[in-house]
Amino acid sequence: MSYSDIIELRGHIIDSLVLPQIMEEVMDRGGEFVIQQIDVGRRKDEPSYARIQISAPTEELLHLLLDRAQRIGATSDHAEPVSTQPAPRDGVFPEGFYSTTNLDTEVRLGSEWVRVEHPEMDCAVAVDRASGRAWTLALSDIRAGQEVAVGHEGIKVIPLERPRVQPPVFAFMGSNVSSEKPKALLIKEIAGRLQEIRARDGRVILVGGPVLVHTGTRDFVAALIHAGYVNVLFGGNGLATHDVEMAMFGTSLGVSLAEGTPHEGGHEHHLRAINRIRAVGSLKAAVENGLLQNGVMHACVTTNTRFILAGSVRDDGPLPDVVTDMIEAQRLMRAEVHKGVDLVMVLSSMLHGIATGNFLPASVTTVCVDINPAVVTKLADRGSFQAIGLVMDVEGFLRELCGELGLRT
Amino acid sequence: MSYSDIIELRGHIIDSLVLPQIMEEVMDRGGEFVIQQIDVGRRKDEPSYARIQISAPTEELLHLLLDRAQRIGATSDHAEPVSTQPAPRDGVFPEGFYSTTNLDTEVRLGSEWVRVEHPEMDCAVAVDRASGRAWTLALSDIRAGQEVAVGHEGIKVIPLERPRVQPPVFAFMGSNVSSEKPKALLIKEIAGRLQEIRARDGRVILVGGPVLVHTGTRDFVAALIHAGYVNVLFGGNGLATHDVEMAMFGTSLGVSLAEGTPHEGGHEHHLRAINRIRAVGSLKAAVENGLLQNGVMHACVTTNTRFILAGSVRDDGPLPDVVTDMIEAQRLMRAEVHKGVDLVMVLSSMLHGIATGNFLPASVTTVCVDINPAVVTKLADRGSFQAIGLVMDVEGFLRELCGELGLRT
Amino acid sequence: MSYSDIIELRGHIIDSLVLPQIMEEVMDRGGEFVIQQIDVGRRKDEPSYARIQISAPTEELLHLLLDRAQRIGATSDHAEPVSTQPAPRDGVFPEGFYSTTNLDTEVRLGSEWVRVEHPEMDCAVAVDRASGRAWTLALSDIRAGQEVAVGHEGIKVIPLERPRVQPPVFAFMGSNVSSEKPKALLIKEIAGRLQEIRARDGRVILVGGPVLVHTGTRDFVAALIHAGYVNVLFGGNGLATHDVEMAMFGTSLGVSLAEGTPHEGGHEHHLRAINRIRAVGSLKAAVENGLLQNGVMHACVTTNTRFILAGSVRDDGPLPDVVTDMIEAQRLMRAEVHKGVDLVMVLSSMLHGIATGNFLPASVTTVCVDINPAVVTKLADRGSFQAIGLVMDVEGFLRELCGELGLRT
Amino acid sequence: MSYSDIIELRGHIIDSLVLPQIMEEVMDRGGEFVIQQIDVGRRKDEPSYARIQISAPTEELLHLLLDRAQRIGATSDHAEPVSTQPAPRDGVFPEGFYSTTNLDTEVRLGSEWVRVEHPEMDCAVAVDRASGRAWTLALSDIRAGQEVAVGHEGIKVIPLERPRVQPPVFAFMGSNVSSEKPKALLIKEIAGRLQEIRARDGRVILVGGPVLVHTGTRDFVAALIHAGYVNVLFGGNGLATHDVEMAMFGTSLGVSLAEGTPHEGGHEHHLRAINRIRAVGSLKAAVENGLLQNGVMHACVTTNTRFILAGSVRDDGPLPDVVTDMIEAQRLMRAEVHKGVDLVMVLSSMLHGIATGNFLPASVTTVCVDINPAVVTKLADRGSFQAIGLVMDVEGFLRELCGELGLRT
Repeated sequence: MSYSDIIELRGHIIDSLVLPQIMEEVMDRGGEFVIQQIDVGRRKDEPSYARIQISAPTEELLHLLLDRAQRIGATSDHAEPVSTQPAPRDGVFPEGFYSTTNLDTEVRLGSEWVRVEHPEMDCAVAVDRASGRAWTLALSDIRAGQEVAVGHEGIKVIPLERPRVQPPVFAFMGSNVSSEKPKALLIKEIAGRLQEIRARDGRVILVGGPVLVHTGTRDFVAALIHAGYVNVLFGGNGLATHDVEMAMFGTSLGVSLAEGTPHEGGHEHHLRAINRIRAVGSLKAAVENGLLQNGVMHACVTTNTRFILAGSVRDDGPLPDVVTDMIEAQRLMRAEVHKGVDLVMVLSSMLHGIATGNFLPASVTTVCVDINPAVVTKLADRGSFQAIGLVMDVEGFLRELCGELGLRT
Repeated sequence: MSYSDIIELRGHIIDSLVLPQIMEEVMDRGGEFVIQQIDVGRRKDEPSYARIQISAPTEELLHLLLDRAQRIGATSDHAEPVSTQPAPRDGVFPEGFYSTTNLDTEVRLGSEWVRVEHPEMDCAVAVDRASGRAWTLALSDIRAGQEVAVGHEGIKVIPLERPRVQPPVFAFMGSNVSSEKPKALLIKEIAGRLQEIRARDGRVILVGGPVLVHTGTRDFVAALIHAGYVNVLFGGNGLATHDVEMAMFGTSLGVSLAEGTPHEGGHEHHLRAINRIRAVGSLKAAVENGLLQNGVMHACVTTNTRFILAGSVRDDGPLPDVVTDMIEAQRLMRAEVHKGVDLVMVLSSMLHGIATGNFLPASVTTVCVDINPAVVTKLADRGSFQAIGLVMDVEGFLRELCGELGLRT
Repeated sequence: MSYSDIIELRGHIIDSLVLPQIMEEVMDRGGEFVIQQIDVGRRKDEPSYARIQISAPTEELLHLLLDRAQRIGATSDHAEPVSTQPAPRDGVFPEGFYSTTNLDTEVRLGSEWVRVEHPEMDCAVAVDRASGRAWTLALSDIRAGQEVAVGHEGIKVIPLERPRVQPPVFAFMGSNVSSEKPKALLIKEIAGRLQEIRARDGRVILVGGPVLVHTGTRDFVAALIHAGYVNVLFGGNGLATHDVEMAMFGTSLGVSLAEGTPHEGGHEHHLRAINRIRAVGSLKAAVENGLLQNGVMHACVTTNTRFILAGSVRDDGPLPDVVTDMIEAQRLMRAEVHKGVDLVMVLSSMLHGIATGNFLPASVTTVCVDINPAVVTKLADRGSFQAIGLVMDVEGFLRELCGELGLRT
Repeated sequence: MSYSDIIELRGHIIDSLVLPQIMEEVMDRGGEFVIQQIDVGRRKDEPSYARIQISAPTEELLHLLLDRAQRIGATSDHAEPVSTQPAPRDGVFPEGFYSTTNLDTEVRLGSEWVRVEHPEMDCAVAVDRASGRAWTLALSDIRAGQEVAVGHEGIKVIPLERPRVQPPVFAFMGSNVSSEKPKALLIKEIAGRLQEIRARDGRVILVGGPVLVHTGTRDFVAALIHAGYVNVLFGGNGLATHDVEMAMFGTSLGVSLAEGTPHEGGHEHHLRAINRIRAVGSLKAAVENGLLQNGVMHACVTTNTRFILAGSVRDDGPLPDVVTDMIEAQRLMRAEVHKGVDLVMVLSSMLHGIATGNFLPASVTTVCVDINPAVVTKLADRGSFQAIGLVMDVEGFLRELCGELGLRT
C-alpha cells in the first residue's frame, strides 16, 4: 500500500539545488520517487524541467514530503486555487494556516497566480479576494475575520537561483564564514555596492551594536551616515547610550578612548548620559540645544536619517527614544523593510541582527561582520542567498570600508 | 600645589583586596598616598584598620580618587550626612546623583548610618528622611520630587570579604571560568546548596534559554520544578515556545528529539504552537484544558511556580504570557529579586541572564552554565563575589545535577 | 576562440552533488558547458549518466576546469593511460605530480583501471608498472627514481555517494555541527557502531587530548580500552603526562580531581611525573614495576593496546615514549591507518586530530567531540563524508557513551 | 598539635599582591597565620616588610604552605644554603628537584645569594659550586651527575612588582583581554616600544602562524623585517609554506588573494610549493636562485634575520628548513631566548606561541594578537607580568602597527 502524487520543477533546478534537495528529503524521510520526465537545460542559461512522482507508505508522510517539496520550490502539476479561512480572533491564525518562507511566493486566486507582497518567514499569507491581493502578516497583526491561506495547495515558492554570471563574491546559499579569507577584496566589493545603491537612490539598513562605540569606530559610522550611505539605522539602547556617553564624557562604558584607561566606575558615565537625555526629552532635543554634539546619533539627527532603537530587558535607563514595547518595535522595523531595502549591514549586533533577519526577504543582500564566528554563522545562515559573513574586528572593517569609499573621519 | 583628603579602611582590607585596589587606583591615576596609620590584624579573624592620606595635583583628580576609594569600601574619616536633591521630573535623576554599586551600602542620615534597601548597580539611592529609610531606585521608576542622594559624602560601601573558612568552591571575586576544571565536584556542591535552600524555604531563581529545550533537557528542568528546587523561572518567548512545541509536536524548532531528524520546515511547528496558545489565551488555560500536558511551563503552572517571560525584538508571536514592554518586564523581575533570593542559576541564557544579573546584589550566589566560554565570562564577571561559571553542555549539567539530587525524569 | 573537451559522469550524480558542483565550478570560473547527453536514473537506486562538453576562453582555464571536474568525479570520455615520471631526488616529487584527494582513486595502467591503495590527501600516486600496483606516497617517503603519476589523464576519482537508505545520523558531506541538536540520539548511534565494529574485529582509533584527564574522564577512556572498544590510541605528551600525574599525585596540572582545589604549583606535579617515568625508562616499565597503577596509559599497557604519542614543540619533558621526530611520528600513525580503520573518534584534540584527519580516506567515519565549535568545524569539515561533530563537553560525551555501552567505571 | 615556621616578605608586598596571595593560600588550604611584625611603607616608593608565622595541623600541609609562599616570594627568616643532588641519569632529575617558576630566582651558595641564569618555568636549577654559578636546565638537557637544587631551602624568588609609575598600558599580572578596548592606543604604545628597542639594539622575537599569509598580511610582516624591527622569527611549516605558495602561485591554501576566489584544489599549490623548495634544498637556496622572490621568508633570508621553523605532526612536506625533531627545535628556540629578548609578539600562533611562552622569563613583555579570545587568554595568562592581549584581526593589527611605524608595503 502506498500513497503518491506528482510534482513539477522548473528553472535551474540542478545547480540551484532544488532537485538534489528534494531527492534528499524524499530519501532521508523514507519515501520513494520516480522521475517521470526530465529535460535538462543544455547550457547554463537554459532552464530545466522535471516531473516527479513522489510516493510514501503513509498518507501523512506523503503529505509531509509534498509540503517539504513545495517549500523548496516544487509545484503541483494540477494547480488548484488557494484555500483560505478567516482568523478566529485578533492575533490568532486559523489552525491550518500556511506558514511562510522568506522566498518569493505566489498564491493562486481563481486561475491567476498572485505575488505575495513582502515575503517574510514565519508569517501567514493574508488574502483579499476582492482586490486580488495577498501579503504576509505577522501573528500579532492579524485581525479577527481576515482571510488567511491554509494548507499548501495553490501556493508556489519561487526558489532563488544561482547567479548565472561569474563573480560570486557574495555567497550563494552558503555561510561564507571564514577568518582566513582575503577580506580586502570582499570589503572592496561591499564599497562598490554601497556606491551603486546610493547612486540609484536605493536603501541601505545598518544594524549596529554597542561595540561600534566601544571599539572607537563611531566616527566611521557617522561618516557613512553623513555621506548618505545609510538610509536607516537599527539598534538598541546600548548603541545610542554609549555613543552619547562618548560625546559627553569621552568614555564608553567608562573607558576613555583617548587615554585607554578606565575612568570613574564603569557604568556611572553611561547612566549620567542617559539621565541627561531623559532630562531634555529626546536625542533630537539634545542635538538641537547643543547637549549632543557628535557621533552616530548626532549624525542621524542632523541628516534626518531614520533610526529605530528597539529596547531589551537588559537595558539601563533607557533613552527616551527607545521603543520599549517589542510588538511596536517590530512593527516599526518591519515598516522600514517594507519600504524596500537593497543591502543590510549587521555590525556586531546579534539581537537586533537576528530580529532584522527575521523581517527580510531571502533576496536581500546581507553583510554580517562580527569578531565572533558563531554570531556570523548564525546571522549569515538564515536563508539569505546573497550573504557575506566576515569574521573580523568591526573597527578594521569600517576603517577599510571608509577608506575604499574615500571618507575622512 | 596639591589637594588631599583622608580616608579610612576597616575589615579584612588586605586579603579582600580593598587596600591593594585603592593603592593601585591612586598610583595608576597619578595620585599619591601616605599611610598615616595601619594596624594589621595578626590572625585571619582579626580585622585591620588603615588611615590614608590621598593627594592629587588637581582638585578634580582628588575628587575622582576619593570617589573610586569610596566605591571600593573606604570611608571618609570625617563622616558628614548624605546630601540629597529632588528629582526634577518623572524618570529623571538630579544631575549629581550617586550611582550605585551592587554592594551593601549605607547612607548617613543625621548621625545614623542607614542600610540602603535592595542593593542594585546603576541605580540612584532614594532617601525618605521622615521614615529614616533609603533604597535603590531605577531611572524609569523615579518620580518628580523624590529625594535622591547626590555626591559621595555620607555614603559608605561595605566591601564583600573573602570567606574566612576553607573551601572556596564558589569563587571569591573572580571569574572561575574554565572548561578544564573537575565539574563533578562543583555540581555536587551546587546540589548541596539547592537542598539546603529548599530545606530552609529559601528562594532560587532559574534563568533559562531556549537551548534547555533544544538539547532535550526540559525533563530535568521540569523535575527540578516539580521537586520544589525552583521558586521563580525567568525566561523569554523562546524557552516557553520551544517547550510548548515539544509538548505538542515532539519537536524543538522542527527537530524531533526522539528521532533526531528534522521534521517539517524548521519554524513551522513553533509558530503553530504559539498560535494554539494564543487561541486559548494563556499557558495556564492551555494546561487546564489539556492542550499542554508536559514540560517546563506545564510544571510551572501545575506547581504554581512563578514565571516571568520577558519579550525581545526577535520574538515570533509571541505567546500571550510574554511581557512585551521592557520597563514592565524589568519591574516584574526586580520585584521577584526584592522578595529575596539565595541562588541564581543562569542556564544558556545570555540576554535574560545579563538582565537578571543587573538586578542582583553582589552577595547573591550565582551559577552560570553555558557551552560558550565568552557567555560564562560575561555573566560570572559582573561583580558577583560568589560565582561559579561552568563551561559545559547544559544537558550534561542538568543530568548530573538531577542525579545528585536523586531526581527521576 | 574557445577550447573545449568532453567529460563523463556516472552514478548518483545529482543528489551526491557531483553534477551541481561541476556546473558551479564551470560557471564561477568563467567557463561554459553543454550537456550533450543526460540519462537520469528514474528511481533512487538507478544510476545516472551525463556527457558534458566544457569549454573555456583560454587553454589554461580549460585545463583548470577539467582538473577540478576530475577531482569531483568526472572522467574523460577518451581514457588514456596515466603518465608517470621518476622522482628526481629522495623526498622530491617530479614537478608535475598529481596531488591526491582523500577519495577512492583509480589509475589507468595500459587498458586496466587499478585502484590506488591507501587513499590519502596531499600525496602523490606511486606506480609500479611491473606489479600493476599503485599507492599513495607522502613527500617525505618518496625515493629517487620511483615512478609517480603526473598530470590528470588516466586518473579517476570515485565520488562518495549519498547513502540510499534512511537514517543519515552520520552526516553526508556536511559539517553536522551544532550545539543545539539532540545529542543522546547521536551518542546511541555511535555506541551501536562501536559494538558492531568490535563484534567483527574491526578497528577503532581514538585520538585524545589532555582535556580527557583534566575533566576527570580518564576512567571512561580506560573503561573503553579495557572493554576492547579502542584498537589504537593517538595522542601527545600532554595526554599521557596528565594521565600519569593523576595516577601518581591525584592531580591534573596540579588540580586535585577529588577535592577540586589546586595543589602545589600548577606545573610541578606533571614535571615530577615525567621525571619518574624517565627514570624507569618507559610507560611499560612503569606499569610493570608498579609505579603506574591506573588510567589511560595503564589500560593501554595492560591490554596491549597500541599507542602512539607524537610530540610537539610545546611539550615539557617529554615522556620517554613520546616520538619526538615528526616525520617518524607521521610514519607510525600512517602505518596504523593503513592497517585499516572503521571509526575514528577525535576527543578534544585539535593538533593530533588534524594530523590524523590528514591520513584518513574520506570513507572513514569520524566522530569529533569538542566544547569549542570552531575545532569541531575544522575537524568535521575535512572532507570526510561520514562525520559527526558534537559540540559538547567530552566528559558528558564519554559518560553517556559508556552508559550506552553498559560500562562501569 | 600544630607545626609552624616563620617567613619573611620584603618589597611592595601589598599592591604587588604578595601578602594577599599568601594569606589566601594559607586560609584556603586550612592553615593559620600570625603576623608577628609588619612595617608598611607609607608612600608608594617605600618598601614594606612582614614577618609571618605560618602553622598547620600536619607537617605535610606546613611543608606545602611554605613551598607555596616561597614561590610567591617569601623567604625563610633563617637562610640556609641550597641543597643539591646529582642527576641519576642523562635526562633525569634527582627525585626531590626544585621545579622552577619563570620569576627571577636566587640560590644560596655558602653565604652568598647567587642569581639563577635564564629564568624559565618547569625546569630544574643546575648548580656549579666551583664556579659559583646556577642556571635553569630543561629535563631533556640534564646530564648524569650534574648537581641539581632539591627542596626549597636556600632558594628565593623575586616577585615582579607593580610599576610605580603611571600608565600601565601593558597590564600587570593580568590578562588584559578584551575585544572592546580602544586598540589604536595599545598599538601606538607597541610601535613606540619597537622603535625604542631597535634604537638601542635590543631584540624582538616575532612568533607567527599561517594566518599571517592567509589574511594577506605578509607584506606587513616582511616590511617589519626589512625595517629591522624583528630580530628572530619563530614559526612552523605552515607559515613558511603558505608564504612560499603565495610567492609562487599568488594563492594561500589555494585561495587567490588578488581575486578572492579559490584556485585549483585547496591543498595542491602548497604541496607543489614545498616540493620545489625541497628540490633546491633550502629556502636560502630558493632565494639565491630566484625561485623565491618576495614575502616573509624571503625577507628573513635577504636581511639575514634568524628564523626557526619548528615542525608539528600535522605538517605536510615539510619544507627542508623545518626542524622535525622537537627536542632539537626547543633547544634552538631556547638558545635565541637566552641571547636576550625585550619584546615578543605572538601573532595568530597558538602552538608556537605557547612553546615560546614556556621559555620566557616573566619579565619579558609579550603582545598576543588573535581573533580568538580563548587563544589570547591562554597566551597572555602564562604568568608574564607585562602582557597585552589584543583580540583582533591580525591583518588590522599589522596594518595599523606599520602605519604607526611609517612603513610602506
